[in-house]
Amino acid sequence: MIKVGIVGGTGYTGVELLRLLAGHPNTELVAITSRSEKGKPVSALFPNLRGIVDLAFTEPTVANLKQCDVVFFATPHGVAQSLVPEILAAGIRVIDLSADFRIRDIDIWEQWYAQDHAAPNLVAEAVYGLPEFNRDAVANAKLVACPGCYPTSVQLGLKPLLEAGAIDVSDIIANSASGVSGAGKQANVATLLSEAGDNFKAYGASGHRHQPEIEQGLADMAGEPVGLTFVPHLLPIIRGIHTTLYVDLKQDMDVQALFEQHYANEPFVDVLEPNSYPETRTVRGSNCCRIALHRPGNGNKLVILVVEDNLTKGASGQAIQCMNIMFSLDETAGLSMPALMP
Amino acid sequence: MIKVGIVGGTGYTGVELLRLLAGHPNTELVAITSRSEKGKPVSALFPNLRGIVDLAFTEPTVANLKQCDVVFFATPHGVAQSLVPEILAAGIRVIDLSADFRIRDIDIWEQWYAQDHAAPNLVAEAVYGLPEFNRDAVANAKLVACPGCYPTSVQLGLKPLLEAGAIDVSDIIANSASGVSGAGKQANVATLLSEAGDNFKAYGASGHRHQPEIEQGLADMAGEPVGLTFVPHLLPIIRGIHTTLYVDLKQDMDVQALFEQHYANEPFVDVLEPNSYPETRTVRGSNCCRIALHRPGNGNKLVILVVEDNLTKGASGQAIQCMNIMFSLDETAGLSMPALMP
Amino acid sequence: MIKVGIVGGTGYTGVELLRLLAGHPNTELVAITSRSEKGKPVSALFPNLRGIVDLAFTEPTVANLKQCDVVFFATPHGVAQSLVPEILAAGIRVIDLSADFRIRDIDIWEQWYAQDHAAPNLVAEAVYGLPEFNRDAVANAKLVACPGCYPTSVQLGLKPLLEAGAIDVSDIIANSASGVSGAGKQANVATLLSEAGDNFKAYGASGHRHQPEIEQGLADMAGEPVGLTFVPHLLPIIRGIHTTLYVDLKQDMDVQALFEQHYANEPFVDVLEPNSYPETRTVRGSNCCRIALHRPGNGNKLVILVVEDNLTKGASGQAIQCMNIMFSLDETAGLSMPALMP
Amino acid sequence: MIKVGIVGGTGYTGVELLRLLAGHPNTELVAITSRSEKGKPVSALFPNLRGIVDLAFTEPTVANLKQCDVVFFATPHGVAQSLVPEILAAGIRVIDLSADFRIRDIDIWEQWYAQDHAAPNLVAEAVYGLPEFNRDAVANAKLVACPGCYPTSVQLGLKPLLEAGAIDVSDIIANSASGVSGAGKQANVATLLSEAGDNFKAYGASGHRHQPEIEQGLADMAGEPVGLTFVPHLLPIIRGIHTTLYVDLKQDMDVQALFEQHYANEPFVDVLEPNSYPETRTVRGSNCCRIALHRPGNGNKLVILVVEDNLTKGASGQAIQCMNIMFSLDETAGLSMPALMP
Repeated sequence: MIKVGIVGGTGYTGVELLRLLAGHPNTELVAITSRSEKGKPVSALFPNLRGIVDLAFTEPTVANLKQCDVVFFATPHGVAQSLVPEILAAGIRVIDLSADFRIRDIDIWEQWYAQDHAAPNLVAEAVYGLPEFNRDAVANAKLVACPGCYPTSVQLGLKPLLEAGAIDVSDIIANSASGVSGAGKQANVATLLSEAGDNFKAYGASGHRHQPEIEQGLADMAGEPVGLTFVPHLLPIIRGIHTTLYVDLKQDMDVQALFEQHYANEPFVDVLEPNSYPETRTVRGSNCCRIALHRPGNGNKLVILVVEDNLTKGASGQAIQCMNIMFSLDETAGLSMPALMP
Repeated sequence: MIKVGIVGGTGYTGVELLRLLAGHPNTELVAITSRSEKGKPVSALFPNLRGIVDLAFTEPTVANLKQCDVVFFATPHGVAQSLVPEILAAGIRVIDLSADFRIRDIDIWEQWYAQDHAAPNLVAEAVYGLPEFNRDAVANAKLVACPGCYPTSVQLGLKPLLEAGAIDVSDIIANSASGVSGAGKQANVATLLSEAGDNFKAYGASGHRHQPEIEQGLADMAGEPVGLTFVPHLLPIIRGIHTTLYVDLKQDMDVQALFEQHYANEPFVDVLEPNSYPETRTVRGSNCCRIALHRPGNGNKLVILVVEDNLTKGASGQAIQCMNIMFSLDETAGLSMPALMP
Repeated sequence: MIKVGIVGGTGYTGVELLRLLAGHPNTELVAITSRSEKGKPVSALFPNLRGIVDLAFTEPTVANLKQCDVVFFATPHGVAQSLVPEILAAGIRVIDLSADFRIRDIDIWEQWYAQDHAAPNLVAEAVYGLPEFNRDAVANAKLVACPGCYPTSVQLGLKPLLEAGAIDVSDIIANSASGVSGAGKQANVATLLSEAGDNFKAYGASGHRHQPEIEQGLADMAGEPVGLTFVPHLLPIIRGIHTTLYVDLKQDMDVQALFEQHYANEPFVDVLEPNSYPETRTVRGSNCCRIALHRPGNGNKLVILVVEDNLTKGASGQAIQCMNIMFSLDETAGLSMPALMP
Repeated sequence: MIKVGIVGGTGYTGVELLRLLAGHPNTELVAITSRSEKGKPVSALFPNLRGIVDLAFTEPTVANLKQCDVVFFATPHGVAQSLVPEILAAGIRVIDLSADFRIRDIDIWEQWYAQDHAAPNLVAEAVYGLPEFNRDAVANAKLVACPGCYPTSVQLGLKPLLEAGAIDVSDIIANSASGVSGAGKQANVATLLSEAGDNFKAYGASGHRHQPEIEQGLADMAGEPVGLTFVPHLLPIIRGIHTTLYVDLKQDMDVQALFEQHYANEPFVDVLEPNSYPETRTVRGSNCCRIALHRPGNGNKLVILVVEDNLTKGASGQAIQCMNIMFSLDETAGLSMPALMP
C-alpha cells in the first residue's frame, strides 16, 4: 500500500482527494494536516466521510508526514513552495495541486501571483502533471505540478490539433465556464448562493491567472508561441467545467478521426461521436474528460467542446492519476467510478 | 411626496426597499446611509439600479436624515436601537426591519440576542408592523417594528383560527423553509453556493431567534399562551418562504370559509381554492402571501400551507405597506406588481 | 387606453406579456386566446396573476379580437402566419413574437422551419422590431416581427461596431448561453430539472434557427454579408441570456467611447464602465440590456459581453417597447421596473 | 459472480442501478431490457456510462433474462406484476423497485393505483425489502418489494421509537421534501426546470400513494395501527430526501442513546451527534441514511431529522443491499462509496 499524506485538506480539492482515496485499492491515508483545524476529526468537517475516514487533522510538519510515500498539497498558492523542499529532502514524493510549480518562467509567476517565489530552483525540476502530454516524465517525477482546472480542459481540447500542426495558432479562442467550487471554500460574498445562484457572468476577461499556464502548455504542444484569448465565466452549479474552443483549420481534414486516433488509448479522454454535445453532468464526480467536435457549415472554423469535473480531472482526480503513474499502479486505480447522473 | 431615508442600505432588505420605492408613486428617496460604503453610488453596489437610483451612500447621521418624513432601518439587530431615539426626537417616523423592537419582554430579547438593549423604553412604544393584525396601531405609530420573515408566514397562517378559538393552541407545529437570502449578504461559508446549493437541511430546531417573536404574536391573537414547535429549514433558492403548519381543530368546521371570510378584504393575503398548493415562485418579488388549507381524510388535523417572499412580504414589502398605512396612502401603493414567474 | 389582445397566451412569453401589461399605464387587456385552455381563467394557469388578471382564455378568432387596437402573437412558429392576414385586414396592428416574419428570404425561412410559409407577401411588409435599429419603421408598422432572444443580444452587442465599420466582419464569434425558459413550456425530457439542472452544455453548434436571423440583422447593420460562428449553450437558470462576442478591430480605437456615445440616448441599453462584467441577474425581469467591453492585453481582439432577460428584452418586453413606439406612448411606459435582485 | 438483469432500465432508478452495479465486485450485468429503446446501447441513453457499460437494451422477455440469477424491476407500477410470475417460475429471484408488491392489502393497493392487481397471490409471498427491519426475511426471499423513497426515510426515523413503545402512535407527523428525480424521467410540464426550479411547494397533502405503505410499515413496527399525517414537498434539487418527523414521547428518556444503540450495527444508518443537522448533500449518491434528534426545550416533543438519497438508499442502493443479503455477499459490497460533496 502506498502511504499517502495530504497537506491542507480542508478545502474542496482536499475533500475530493479524500473521497477518491477512500475507494483506492492501493493506498493508505496516513496523515492529513491543517493548521486551523488541528485536532478535529476529518469527518466533523466533511460529514460525507463519517464512517469512512477516521483520521483527525494534524499540524503540517515534516515530522507528521515522514512516514508517507507521497504527499499531496491541496493548499492555496504560496504554501507548497515553502514546505515542499523539506518534504522532498526527506525522500517523499510530492504532488502539488496548487499553482506554485506550474509556470516555468519565475518572473511571470511572480507577476501574476504578486509575491516572490520561495523555491524557484524547484520549478525547473517540477513535472507538469498532465498525463496525456507528459506521462513518462510524470512516472519519474519527484515533484508533480498538477495543471489548473481550466488549463486541463483547454489543453486536452487542443492537443491533437497542435501536435498535428493543423490549426492557426495565432488566434485561439477559449470560452470557458466553471462551477463555483473552483473558487474554493473561502467565505466570500461573490460566491454566496444569493449572489452566484440563478446567475451567469464572465470574469477575468482582461487577464486570469490561468492564462500564462495555458499559453505555456499550448506552446509546448505546438512547438511555438500561441495567441490565446481566454474568457472564463461563472456557472451557477457546484462542479463542472465546459470549454468551447474556436480555432481555424489550416486545411480541410478529418478532425474526428484525428481526435479519435489521438486519444484511442487514453483512459480518461472520451471523444464523442459526431454531432454530440458533452454535458458537464456526464462527468460529475468522474475523472473523465469528454470532447466533441463541430464544423459549422463544414467550414474551416472548428468548434471544440470539452467537459470535465473541475475537482476531479481538473484537480484531485488528475493528481491521483499522476500518483498511479508515479508508483506504477494501474493508471485508473481508484478512478473508474461513473459520473453521478442524474 | 413622502421623503424617505434608509439606514443601512447595503444588504438584501435594503436593495429590496430600493427596488420597491423606485416604483412607488408617492415617495422620494432622499438619503441612504452606510458607514462602510460612504460615498459610493448605490448603483455601483446594486447594478440592477443603474439608471434608476442616482444617490450615493452617506454617513448614518441624523443630519443626513433630517429632511426625511420616514426612515427605514435595514440594519443588523442592535443598530437601530442606538440611533432611533435621536431620529424620533427629530420628529421623523421610523420603520425598523430589524429585530430590535419586535419583542416586548426585554429579558427575552436580551437573552436571545446576547446583548443589552439600548432603548428598552422605546420597545413599549413600538408597534408590531403586521398590518393584518395591527392596522390601526400602525397608522398612528411613530416607531414600527416590522415582523420577521418566518413570523409573518406563521402568524398569517394561524390568525383566523386563533382569533376564532378553533384550534388546540397547546400543540402547534410550524415547519418552515426559507431561501438563503434570509441569511443576508454576509460572507459566510455555510451560505456559499458550493455549500447551500443542491442541498436541504433543517437548522435551529433546538431554538431560533424567531421563536419568541412568533410565540408572542400567536399569544396576542389567541389571547392565551401557545405551545409552538418551530423548525426552520434552508432551501437552495434565493427568495421565498414556505411554511407548513400542523394544528388540531377543536371541532369540525368549514375552515375554507373561515379563511376566505377572514381575509376577504386583505389586499396581500390570498386564500387559494380548496385542494391547492401555493408555490414560492408565485410570490417571487411580490408582497402577496398565499395560503391553502388541507384536512387529510377530513380529520381534525389541519394542514395550512403558506408562502411569501421573505424579502418582500417578509421584510421590505411589508415595511412599505406599513409606511403606506402610516401616511394614509393607498395601502397597495408601489406594491401591486405581480410575482416574476417563471 | 390602448386595447390589447394576446393570441396564444399560455406559454412563457404570454405570461411575461401579462405581467408587464398589468403594470402598463396606457393599456387595457381585452382578450387573450388559447384553443387548448378556452374558458379557463388566466389566473388558474398563472397563479402569480391571481387578483391581477381577471380574464379567461377564449377561442383565437378574429371575432374575439376585433375590439383590439393591437394583437400580440405569443404562439409557436407557423401559427401567426395563418391568422395575421385576417387580423390586419380588420385594421388591427400586430406584434408577432414568433419567428414567422423575421426572415426576409422565404426560402431560408422554409428551409430552417421545414414548412411552407403561409403568408410570404406579408414578410416584406413586416418591420423587424429592434427599436435601437429600426425605431422609425416600427413607429409606422402595421406588422412587427419581434427579434429572437439570442439575435437581440448579438445585434445590440455589435451594432456600434458594424455601423462604424470598425471590425472584420468576416469572422465574428458569438458564444451565447440561455436560461431554459427559452425552450418554452412544453413537456420535454431534455428540459426537466433532473436533466437540465446542475448542468451546462452547448447545442445547435452545427446550425441553430437563430443563425440566419442574426446574419440578416448583422448584414443590415454592416451593409455587407458577415461571417458568423454562433454557438448557443443551455444554462441551468430560468431567465437570462449572456452572449460573449469575439471580434477583431480593424485598427486601434476607443471602443468604450464608441459604445457610450452610440447608446447614450437608448433607454434600454446600458453600457457599463470599463472593466465591468454584466451579470444576467442584473436584468432579471427587466427590459434592460447591459453591455461591457474588454480588450485583453489591449490587442485588436475585442470581447463584448451582453446580458438581457430572454423573456423581457429578448421577447415580451421588447414587444411592448415596440407597441409603445407604434402608439406614440412614452417608450419606457410599463417597462421601467428594476431587475429583481437578489 | 451473480448474474444480474434489469427490466426497464431507462429511468432514473435504472441508471442508478447501472452506476452502482458498475462498481460492484460480485456481479455481472448480463441483460437490460426496454421495449422502447430496444437495440440502443445503454451508453447512448446514459453518457456517464460510456466506456463502462457495453450492453444494449433488449426486449423484456423471459428468454432474454433466463441466464440471470436475479432480476431487478425498475419499471413503473403495474409492469412487474405481469412479468414477475414467469420470471419466478424460471427460478430467478426478483427485486422489484416499483410499488407492485409493497402493500399487503390488495384492496388498498387497487384503490390507490386505480387498477386491478395482476398477481395478488404473489403479494403475500413478497418480502418488504427494508433490511433494517426485515433482514432475515430478505435473505430467504424469492421476491423482494423494495420500499418507496419517502417510506424508507420515515420508517428508519421512527423504528427505534416504535419498537421501544416510546411514543404516542396516534399522532405522528411526517413532513418530507424530495428532489425532483423522485418524479422520474417522464416529460412533464410540472417538473421542467422552468417550473420546478427556484421553487418549493407541498403536494399530495390530501393523500399520497406512499401514505398506505408508510402506515403499514409503521404499524408493523409498532404492533398496532398508527395515526400518520404525511405531507410531501418538492425540492428544487435533483437527488435527496429530507424528512422532519414530529412525535410526542410518552415519557422522558435518552432518545439519543436509544437511536445510537438501535443502529449501532447497521452499516447504512448513521445517527449523528446531538445538536446536529443532517444535510441531503452528505448522502448524495451514497446508500447512507443519516438521522439527528432534537427535543426543543427538552420537552416531550421529539423532532427527528432524516436524510437519504432517494435514488440510492431510497431505491436502487437499497435494492442492491437486498441483493447482497439474498446472495450472502458482504451487505456493503458495491455500496461503500462516500457521498459526492461538495
